[in-house]
Amino acid sequence: MNGILISLEGPDGAGKTTVLKEILPEIKKMKRDIISTREPGGVRLAEEIRQLILDPKNTEIDSKTEMLLFAAARRLHMQEKMLPALKAGKVVIVDRFIDSSVAYQGYGRELGVEVVDWLNNFATDGLEPDLTLYFDIDTDVALDRIMSNRADEVNRLDLERAEMHRKVRQGYLKMVEKEPQRYVTIDASQSVEKVVSDTIEAIKERFASIF
Amino acid sequence: MNGILISLEGPDGAGKTTVLKEILPEIKKMKRDIISTREPGGVRLAEEIRQLILDPKNTEIDSKTEMLLFAAARRLHMQEKMLPALKAGKVVIVDRFIDSSVAYQGYGRELGVEVVDWLNNFATDGLEPDLTLYFDIDTDVALDRIMSNRADEVNRLDLERAEMHRKVRQGYLKMVEKEPQRYVTIDASQSVEKVVSDTIEAIKERFASIF
Repeated sequence: MNGILISLEGPDGAGKTTVLKEILPEIKKMKRDIISTREPGGVRLAEEIRQLILDPKNTEIDSKTEMLLFAAARRLHMQEKMLPALKAGKVVIVDRFIDSSVAYQGYGRELGVEVVDWLNNFATDGLEPDLTLYFDIDTDVALDRIMSNRADEVNRLDLERAEMHRKVRQGYLKMVEKEPQRYVTIDASQSVEKVVSDTIEAIKERFASIF
Repeated sequence: MNGILISLEGPDGAGKTTVLKEILPEIKKMKRDIISTREPGGVRLAEEIRQLILDPKNTEIDSKTEMLLFAAARRLHMQEKMLPALKAGKVVIVDRFIDSSVAYQGYGRELGVEVVDWLNNFATDGLEPDLTLYFDIDTDVALDRIMSNRADEVNRLDLERAEMHRKVRQGYLKMVEKEPQRYVTIDASQSVEKVVSDTIEAIKERFASIF
């Protein structure tokens, strides 16, 4: 595979999804075809699984079941969408990937990092991003953002809040510490404009040869 | 938990499901409440996952995705139906459980026994049957039965046949060899009447104190 895989990671409220939309026009100037996608979902069957996971009525889904369903959706999405693009030499930008499970299920829901690493590896056959942009944000700032943005839309995963959010952020910080060469940390508490320009800068710096 | 868990296992065409229906009137004479259930499925959300797995149009589900979905369905079924009954002291008879994944995904689809054991253990928190009735049948006899019974109903899992069936049976035989104390092997090539009486006999012998 001669494609490039870039994942965007961070706690809810870090603004990843907004930033992804904003960086695309600039990133598309790269001398490679680019696709952007997201987890969980991205392909038909994975979207169906995503619906099961997020449906607030499915209260019987505990941390382990959730992890298994995320892993199944991850594999479907990887095989159907990410791998064909990577094999064709494209740049794939994915909003959440393996690290989200480590942060949310491993640290947040306390399944443990080893267990989640095992399941990620099983689901992805060991595929890892070439670069992970980690959008770091203070928990209180993030929670304020979420609350003001989402008054209209509350899903099952929104029901537990501050404590979970703190564990997730700590998880991400540990991952970055353990594997610094894969991550660039972006300060997501800055203005959207600054976050966007930092993100573009980070990608250009890492992949200078194809800009 | 003071309940008793009995699983029924065997390759397709062994007649497990028919036998289960036939033994129930006699088994219900035990001095315990009994529930009978089946995998994959058995509860609402697990049934939805079962539909995803069996739908012939879902050709993008490979062995690993299938295994993850089975594990998720298994956990839901266990938590919602099996554990409450076992905690209430009931006898739970389940048509397919952890061994089916070892036989079908581990041996049949060659994911490997260690991998499937790991996922089973993750999904069930280590729950194992007190007794497993293994319905053994020669592959050619089983295939003849399947073909004559199911001309009208072909699902995705039916599409690969003889080779898979042989691997599955070999897998079951290895499991029985490895852990003989948990299994009673029933010769499923006999008449239904004889299979039924052998099955009832095996259960009565193992749990004589509650008959």
